[in-house]
Amino acid sequence: MLNKNIETFMMCDAEYSEAEVILFGAPFDSTTSYRPGARFGSGTIRRESYGIESYSPYQDRDLADIAVMDSGDIELCIGNTNKALEQIEERTSRILEDKKLPFMLGGEHLVTLGAFRAVQKQFPEVFVIHFDAHADLREDYLGVKLSHACVLRRCWELIGDGRIHQFGIRSGDREEFLWGKDHVETRKFDFQGLDQTLEKLAGKPVYLTVDLDVLDPGVFPGTGTPEPGGVSFLELQRAVTAVCREAAVVGCDVNELSPHYDPSGISAAAACKIVREMLLALQL
Amino acid sequence: MLNKNIETFMMCDAEYSEAEVILFGAPFDSTTSYRPGARFGSGTIRRESYGIESYSPYQDRDLADIAVMDSGDIELCIGNTNKALEQIEERTSRILEDKKLPFMLGGEHLVTLGAFRAVQKQFPEVFVIHFDAHADLREDYLGVKLSHACVLRRCWELIGDGRIHQFGIRSGDREEFLWGKDHVETRKFDFQGLDQTLEKLAGKPVYLTVDLDVLDPGVFPGTGTPEPGGVSFLELQRAVTAVCREAAVVGCDVNELSPHYDPSGISAAAACKIVREMLLALQL
Amino acid sequence: MLNKNIETFMMCDAEYSEAEVILFGAPFDSTTSYRPGARFGSGTIRRESYGIESYSPYQDRDLADIAVMDSGDIELCIGNTNKALEQIEERTSRILEDKKLPFMLGGEHLVTLGAFRAVQKQFPEVFVIHFDAHADLREDYLGVKLSHACVLRRCWELIGDGRIHQFGIRSGDREEFLWGKDHVETRKFDFQGLDQTLEKLAGKPVYLTVDLDVLDPGVFPGTGTPEPGGVSFLELQRAVTAVCREAAVVGCDVNELSPHYDPSGISAAAACKIVREMLLALQL
Amino acid sequence: MLNKNIETFMMCDAEYSEAEVILFGAPFDSTTSYRPGARFGSGTIRRESYGIESYSPYQDRDLADIAVMDSGDIELCIGNTNKALEQIEERTSRILEDKKLPFMLGGEHLVTLGAFRAVQKQFPEVFVIHFDAHADLREDYLGVKLSHACVLRRCWELIGDGRIHQFGIRSGDREEFLWGKDHVETRKFDFQGLDQTLEKLAGKPVYLTVDLDVLDPGVFPGTGTPEPGGVSFLELQRAVTAVCREAAVVGCDVNELSPHYDPSGISAAAACKIVREMLLALQL
Amino acid sequence: MLNKNIETFMMCDAEYSEAEVILFGAPFDSTTSYRPGARFGSGTIRRESYGIESYSPYQDRDLADIAVMDSGDIELCIGNTNKALEQIEERTSRILEDKKLPFMLGGEHLVTLGAFRAVQKQFPEVFVIHFDAHADLREDYLGVKLSHACVLRRCWELIGDGRIHQFGIRSGDREEFLWGKDHVETRKFDFQGLDQTLEKLAGKPVYLTVDLDVLDPGVFPGTGTPEPGGVSFLELQRAVTAVCREAAVVGCDVNELSPHYDPSGISAAAACKIVREMLLALQL
Amino acid sequence: MLNKNIETFMMCDAEYSEAEVILFGAPFDSTTSYRPGARFGSGTIRRESYGIESYSPYQDRDLADIAVMDSGDIELCIGNTNKALEQIEERTSRILEDKKLPFMLGGEHLVTLGAFRAVQKQFPEVFVIHFDAHADLREDYLGVKLSHACVLRRCWELIGDGRIHQFGIRSGDREEFLWGKDHVETRKFDFQGLDQTLEKLAGKPVYLTVDLDVLDPGVFPGTGTPEPGGVSFLELQRAVTAVCREAAVVGCDVNELSPHYDPSGISAAAACKIVREMLLALQL
Repeated sequence: MLNKNIETFMMCDAEYSEAEVILFGAPFDSTTSYRPGARFGSGTIRRESYGIESYSPYQDRDLADIAVMDSGDIELCIGNTNKALEQIEERTSRILEDKKLPFMLGGEHLVTLGAFRAVQKQFPEVFVIHFDAHADLREDYLGVKLSHACVLRRCWELIGDGRIHQFGIRSGDREEFLWGKDHVETRKFDFQGLDQTLEKLAGKPVYLTVDLDVLDPGVFPGTGTPEPGGVSFLELQRAVTAVCREAAVVGCDVNELSPHYDPSGISAAAACKIVREMLLALQL
Repeated sequence: MLNKNIETFMMCDAEYSEAEVILFGAPFDSTTSYRPGARFGSGTIRRESYGIESYSPYQDRDLADIAVMDSGDIELCIGNTNKALEQIEERTSRILEDKKLPFMLGGEHLVTLGAFRAVQKQFPEVFVIHFDAHADLREDYLGVKLSHACVLRRCWELIGDGRIHQFGIRSGDREEFLWGKDHVETRKFDFQGLDQTLEKLAGKPVYLTVDLDVLDPGVFPGTGTPEPGGVSFLELQRAVTAVCREAAVVGCDVNELSPHYDPSGISAAAACKIVREMLLALQL
Repeated sequence: MLNKNIETFMMCDAEYSEAEVILFGAPFDSTTSYRPGARFGSGTIRRESYGIESYSPYQDRDLADIAVMDSGDIELCIGNTNKALEQIEERTSRILEDKKLPFMLGGEHLVTLGAFRAVQKQFPEVFVIHFDAHADLREDYLGVKLSHACVLRRCWELIGDGRIHQFGIRSGDREEFLWGKDHVETRKFDFQGLDQTLEKLAGKPVYLTVDLDVLDPGVFPGTGTPEPGGVSFLELQRAVTAVCREAAVVGCDVNELSPHYDPSGISAAAACKIVREMLLALQL
Repeated sequence: MLNKNIETFMMCDAEYSEAEVILFGAPFDSTTSYRPGARFGSGTIRRESYGIESYSPYQDRDLADIAVMDSGDIELCIGNTNKALEQIEERTSRILEDKKLPFMLGGEHLVTLGAFRAVQKQFPEVFVIHFDAHADLREDYLGVKLSHACVLRRCWELIGDGRIHQFGIRSGDREEFLWGKDHVETRKFDFQGLDQTLEKLAGKPVYLTVDLDVLDPGVFPGTGTPEPGGVSFLELQRAVTAVCREAAVVGCDVNELSPHYDPSGISAAAACKIVREMLLALQL
Repeated sequence: MLNKNIETFMMCDAEYSEAEVILFGAPFDSTTSYRPGARFGSGTIRRESYGIESYSPYQDRDLADIAVMDSGDIELCIGNTNKALEQIEERTSRILEDKKLPFMLGGEHLVTLGAFRAVQKQFPEVFVIHFDAHADLREDYLGVKLSHACVLRRCWELIGDGRIHQFGIRSGDREEFLWGKDHVETRKFDFQGLDQTLEKLAGKPVYLTVDLDVLDPGVFPGTGTPEPGGVSFLELQRAVTAVCREAAVVGCDVNELSPHYDPSGISAAAACKIVREMLLALQL
Repeated sequence: MLNKNIETFMMCDAEYSEAEVILFGAPFDSTTSYRPGARFGSGTIRRESYGIESYSPYQDRDLADIAVMDSGDIELCIGNTNKALEQIEERTSRILEDKKLPFMLGGEHLVTLGAFRAVQKQFPEVFVIHFDAHADLREDYLGVKLSHACVLRRCWELIGDGRIHQFGIRSGDREEFLWGKDHVETRKFDFQGLDQTLEKLAGKPVYLTVDLDVLDPGVFPGTGTPEPGGVSFLELQRAVTAVCREAAVVGCDVNELSPHYDPSGISAAAACKIVREMLLALQL
């Protein structure tokens, strides 16, 4: 008997009961203000993962060594932000309740809010480590509060001052940077200071959110709002590995691949490798 | 003294007071369910209009002969559908109050609802002529009522049975077609019957809404949901000319150019020419 | 408990035991002589099927009405033609043994040989209906006999004269056309004569092989060897519907979508609709 | 001993002394007013010719039956129009002096002027048959007289009234069309009337100039100024075949392929086939 | 009353009388020898500027703090180089006469000559700082003296030895480099030595011309002649900031974005940010 | 008399008898497992070489100073790997017999095996220097031994342990890396250790094989299997120059440009410059 076609991120086909990490996709981009298309991110990452190897020469580990399960994309309601965030929160909660680690593939960055709401309920003391080109700290964006440009501000409302640590930020309006000084730790341009942050957060629950546009557009052109002057792939690879190894990560996400803007596919390849490196580095 | 840069659709630079037709753009695509990007349609049509001629050998008329003014894009609230529709309605109302004809460039097809609300208030007896590949008659789409896939259903709620005339429809779910049989006139696949419809509507106010995906994807690939088997450019050119000449058009729109999907630019060229032909054919 | 991600052609998710038609993909293009890439065809058709509707206004039927199961792509051996053809034959045989209809998505056209070998063993009297821009009747191509350019010649070797009926052919070398005159029925350029052929074959088992490059490149640019002057989408839609309705189809395939050459995605949309129309028209 | 790499249009590798037709390229586009890139046309046609067959099922003839030589591209002076036209005239003259037929591959349409000057000196009574979307009859374009938009006007200056026959014209300014009425024969939109023209010109020397943008952009998107509503490939195929068979063609050209605008390559395929059909139809 | 559509570089909408810096576009590329398309550069920079922020975290300054006016593109005569340069010179002179700083957006690099002629008349002692991948010091290029490949040589003819300082140069013919040794300061590959140059030029009038192809093609693929091995965005960002802050800049330009070669848009984003950084750094 | 069109890599048009280096292309990619298209590499490198200069400011040398001949592409048998490798071996042998240096342009990396077989017969003591992202040391790939993923393993079978030196490797499966430890020298990620290797190999015959995907995808996106985290253009430029200058290179190749994946053309530009730098650095 033949089976229905199953498609997962490369080798992430453990049974749910045995998996420690659960991947899922959140194909949503309704609030993207500049160039939409991140809704196609999670599907592309899943599919293009077959172009890379399961083995990482950086970490000398292989996806065959770990138990991950890819539960597919949530069918989200394009055009209804509240509903979509609820659906994401629900999926995340379920995974957490089963004592597994939720690993979300966006989608635009706003999807982080859905997952983080669930995580924060389970781990009220959670800290956030945030890699991004953009501060995402606006109170609202063109009058909309549930916007990708406000997502870390919304997270801050849940956990308060001193709990969000941003790295790589190189774009935002003046108010965001001013406001940020009093409420979050913002490291501009690169990952300087990450080691100290990791030391400080040792043993504490951490949510890691990676907006892939932290990468330089040279190696990651397929994104809605490319910002020249970003970090290299190796810098990001080292940073995510450090966080996943040294921090007590309780949930994470990777966002903002918008594949239509990159006919070469190098952005998808970078996204797939960052996901692989994170999966291999997570210490559960 | 130098002036700030003015960019209008080719030769649509009359002063507002003298213009009979007012162009404006509605760069919105938040409810697009498949491939977003129609938000870039109006700007592209404006810009690429310089690649075509102002003279039409089909009609032997020239844009130089008429008075049109391009008032630019409305700055719409991506991610907030209600607000965006209100903004569109407001711009349309203002133009109608000044006894001018509003000509909207989308955007996804939902923007029609904003303009039509204003038109219907001014002309309660208005009829709709609708060219499209899709019926757009759903009650809701994935639970969302303000969706591009429901826009003609929302228009129907304002004017009731027998007032909407659709042509070129070749895609939809079974329910739409069934519901449509009792409430609207749906002509599948092409423009057969348009002449009779125009005769019937003679002298009555008509709103013309053109979803450019009624065109075959061969000549109009740059759209969110390409549907093979569409009408040719010349068929659409003749159809819009007929409506604009023979009906008492009180408002109109042209939608669903999504330029990023068409690196060749032929979709933009087709859109520009359809807009030109409509402008030249309108009898005010 | 969450399930592993399942991805099928839209609504083709029946259980194997209940399905009458079994879809599978054959992602192979090693013998493509001009522009490779058809290996990505089946996956793209599966994925992009979500951009079209399950309901056909042409046939007034819906995929919800029938039981189809998509068993996914075979993992074929790129670079080893013999092995790949064996794998395809094996999958096809299994489906036929279970009294179901195999429906293969290529891949380059050579994959037809693998499926046809299985079909011909089960139905020794089988006829072939072949829609294509190319005759594919070469004895060998640059010394290679198992080549896409020879696939119908290889099929002929299995069944002999008068059993292959080609339509739409507009490219080939002189020898192919000359040889063809004595051995197969070749209708150049379009579908003229298809009705008579269908009458003649009434009640006899038929294998239908569709090389999508029979379509005009205007509506189907995403293929390895585009040949201007092809049939329209509606002509092909009508032709495949006629065959699937009127002939006793015992197996079929759809080939040669090479999606990287078409950033607009209109080729994938055309492929998906042809597959949908065929599925809806098959009388089992 | 190995030879230096020779690249010609498929099978156009006769020795000069034996060839009846001499191909050459004119890679020039300095006066293109909208989207440049036709300079890459001739090289692309030469290269992509290997994607089509040498045999034409339309004419049942093969390039193997005739003697053509491809003498490569002239190295033209981008940015110096006068010089470039002189270089083209010189190459054309030389071919004519050797009693061979010059067949030029553009480049933008202005290159026709260079070749036509040579042809008109040799054949003062020459007529022009012109297939194009654009009238190209302007006195000047933005003050420039040697512009692609004026090329047929410049040819007219050499031969006077009643000698230019245009077909397929669907774009131009009002003045061109008005002026044209008194001086040339302009058939709008398609090839109607071509048969009569060919009868009238029987036995007289004819220069055939084909601007490929006469084709519909659906099948020929790769051009500087796409004009929706053009002729189909088969219509153009039949028209060029008719001219080359029935008229006494003494020189010809094919222009305005701009390959960068068409990643699918279907425009190049169409150009190659039109060149093949013309070569096969020429009766020398 | 509605206004005609105004489009400027983001926030560069000061009134002319109040503006200190005047932007204008020079959409010209007729002498481009390799891949044309820079004519679309200025329009794209203007349009895509809305994808970046007005605030620079590098300089902690905002476009809201300064008074810039974008006067739009000059309508240049494609195909007539002399005329185009005159038009550019005229616009530049006018701005200089009004004691404002001209900031030109190209176009190909030759446009610099038009602006520099005006600047040199007003400031005969002017120095040039030149960032580029190419030396642009040829006496002529294929016989043409007014070519992008000769533009700095033409500038040198106006001001003589020791007044041109080039940085980042990594391409040219042997003669250019040899000639350059005696007449200009050429720093190969990067910005080493810029600090000393700025010290030396302190207080003297400087014209800054930036050919964006000085950037590595990885981050700036959208240009006519990509040259691997260029500087990073941050290196260029620091270099232009240093010049604009420390030198007495009396005019400047940014050239050679050719957007059609970069479907990802990262080149336009880099261009926009370089323009923003220059505007913010200019000390008037 | 006019000559047939000759196209060579820029200035590589010496007569065979006088040339010291012979270029040839091997347009083959039948075993490519992920994204095919490298068959178009050699032709693209040849053609796009006209976009770069013949002079290298890195080495202060010019192609005009040396005698190279481009003998064109071998017409290889797509779909028949054994035959293709034989054809490559034959061309290489012939060049070696004439005491010239063979310089092959791929094609996928497997083509190296054909050339290396010939080289190894002539120089049994030959060493290999291998720049690549991938180890290519598999015993077989999906059951196929003659695969791009196994090419260095096949070379090793000819020469044994300690003779292959790999640099830049950042992808492979675990077994390859384990196996490699005992049999070859593998330097991961970059060129560290190259100087020592060159010292060790001084005076010994060396075959240099460059898989261009060793470059970072940011500057070389046009390849079948992009691997983020690669070396920069300048690092590769320095490395190939060092090898070609300091080692006794007896044969070399440059592989894996797949131009369709890079519409910007920056990959081709990088490939052309690497070829130029190698040609200029070879000490014969």
